[in-house]
Amino acid sequence: MSSREGRLKVLIIGAGGMIGSKLARRIASDGVLAGQAVSRLDLVDIGLPSVPPGAEGLARALALDLSDEGVAERLVGDRPDVIFHLAAVVSGAAEADFELGYRVNLDATRALFEAIRRAHMAEGYCPRLVFTSSLAVYGAPLPELIPDDHIRAPHTSYGVQKAITELLLDDYTRRGFLDGIGLRLPTIVIRPGRPNAAASGFFSGILREPLAGQRSVLPVDETTRHWLASPRSAVGFLVHAAGLDGKRVGPRRTLTMPGVDCTVADQIAALGRRAGPEAVALIDRVPDPKIATIIGGWPRAFAPEAARCLGFTAETTVDELIDAYLEDDAPPA
Amino acid sequence: MSSREGRLKVLIIGAGGMIGSKLARRIASDGVLAGQAVSRLDLVDIGLPSVPPGAEGLARALALDLSDEGVAERLVGDRPDVIFHLAAVVSGAAEADFELGYRVNLDATRALFEAIRRAHMAEGYCPRLVFTSSLAVYGAPLPELIPDDHIRAPHTSYGVQKAITELLLDDYTRRGFLDGIGLRLPTIVIRPGRPNAAASGFFSGILREPLAGQRSVLPVDETTRHWLASPRSAVGFLVHAAGLDGKRVGPRRTLTMPGVDCTVADQIAALGRRAGPEAVALIDRVPDPKIATIIGGWPRAFAPEAARCLGFTAETTVDELIDAYLEDDAPPA
Repeated sequence: MSSREGRLKVLIIGAGGMIGSKLARRIASDGVLAGQAVSRLDLVDIGLPSVPPGAEGLARALALDLSDEGVAERLVGDRPDVIFHLAAVVSGAAEADFELGYRVNLDATRALFEAIRRAHMAEGYCPRLVFTSSLAVYGAPLPELIPDDHIRAPHTSYGVQKAITELLLDDYTRRGFLDGIGLRLPTIVIRPGRPNAAASGFFSGILREPLAGQRSVLPVDETTRHWLASPRSAVGFLVHAAGLDGKRVGPRRTLTMPGVDCTVADQIAALGRRAGPEAVALIDRVPDPKIATIIGGWPRAFAPEAARCLGFTAETTVDELIDAYLEDDAPPA
Repeated sequence: MSSREGRLKVLIIGAGGMIGSKLARRIASDGVLAGQAVSRLDLVDIGLPSVPPGAEGLARALALDLSDEGVAERLVGDRPDVIFHLAAVVSGAAEADFELGYRVNLDATRALFEAIRRAHMAEGYCPRLVFTSSLAVYGAPLPELIPDDHIRAPHTSYGVQKAITELLLDDYTRRGFLDGIGLRLPTIVIRPGRPNAAASGFFSGILREPLAGQRSVLPVDETTRHWLASPRSAVGFLVHAAGLDGKRVGPRRTLTMPGVDCTVADQIAALGRRAGPEAVALIDRVPDPKIATIIGGWPRAFAPEAARCLGFTAETTVDELIDAYLEDDAPPA
């Protein structure tokens, strides 16, 4: 990583999403990243992302589609020192539209890598690139506890696109074209905002809605086990990755992030501790075999040793996930 | 697989290589593949491949580069029932020329898959596609015996390109666009012909040259362990893959092929049994630390259970590898 006068240019691609906008606010608020003062914060998304309040002098918002011709070159043209690449077509959409998923999740990402490589060949440019991968790179059969070296054999086009990008990230890093770190994020709980249609939506919903005094549907069994982290932790992973010494990471550049290993029963118990039995009573058990089947094929728990050795940290209890939500995101009562 | 009147159209891409040309001769000689009469055999390579003697009525040779615009569409336009895709830039060349490796090993292969997908969308076309992958998808640290579900984490651009193609093969097969089978071939021993510059060349050379009364250099320690199969077995794997019931394969479509698990000392002992101590005396031990380092990072032995369950077979001793060479390829004494 190099920067004139120790001042850092930062680019966030996918800055309009839930995590991207929180990351922008965090960086604007900190004013530093990877131990250096931030001199420029470019926020890019398909729709114009919002600039964090008070960061108008530092941040610039751009509405651009990375999969459009020439966009990768333009973004790399400013020679950002740190690039966060969070933009993606989500799992369900990539499964519904094969061409869209490959165009955005694979081709646009490769266009970014190639633009960086050409700048490297021309003038030795080599940015830190932080990429968000996914637990969807893992497909059944899966062990109960997934180690860092488990085979990446996805069961969805989205997972394949993420696994391919992980391989490219390793190769471009090994070649010295960029300095990549990939992060497999846990399922984010509690997501702020309104219920959504994602199969994983209930993991947030069964906490978020009762905390607001509203009813929420639980479509799966209480023994369902999954791997969770707060939005705050996700932002923390990204910030930590920006400052990591790449030499410590080794050749496998994508890391499974730590998370809370818990069951739905654990979630409900924590809700009871924080908000009482009346909150728990707002959960309606309405089994949905379709959702249960989808979730049943997902990874349950991980042993993310590499990430822990590199200093990535997350919550360890559902109580902490609830507290993070109440402090950061919950609407005023 | 569908074919008018039970007659099969077969396409070999990479038909000019050592394995491709042997495969063409085998199919022309058998006249059947996957239990059906072969009505057409198209042989494609960058340079014009030779038509097997006597197969002039069946086979057609074409000099085409799959990475050129429109070539994939043209080849798929004939709706071959079975496609063997063997064409690749080899490991050393893909490492020396980054752009060439990705263009040929990834982009050209993806162009083929996409041409097939478009024909599938238009009219339900779904050929059996047999793809040759590589043990280079595995990178250190490696266990002594590598199971079928070991992580694909390559240390070369060639290995990354092959691992990405394996992921695409799974996804295009899962989607029903094609019916893919990938094969990770062992190191081929004894390769016919003259010594070459490949780091693995000595595995063949220390047998082939002494069998012809010529000296040969052994650059590594005799304890070096590796995974070998004859050219005849490699062709057998490809023919067997063409006729496999895809439903039996499961979602992970690329299989490590069986091979001979042996050390260099085992090779030398077999040479002594077949050709006497005077042949063994023709091996010059000239340690080459550079080659030893390259080979030291390679996989050594495998537990290819999936392939064995599906009926793939290979030699089990070096003696058989030597016999196959003497019967198929050795020049007249």
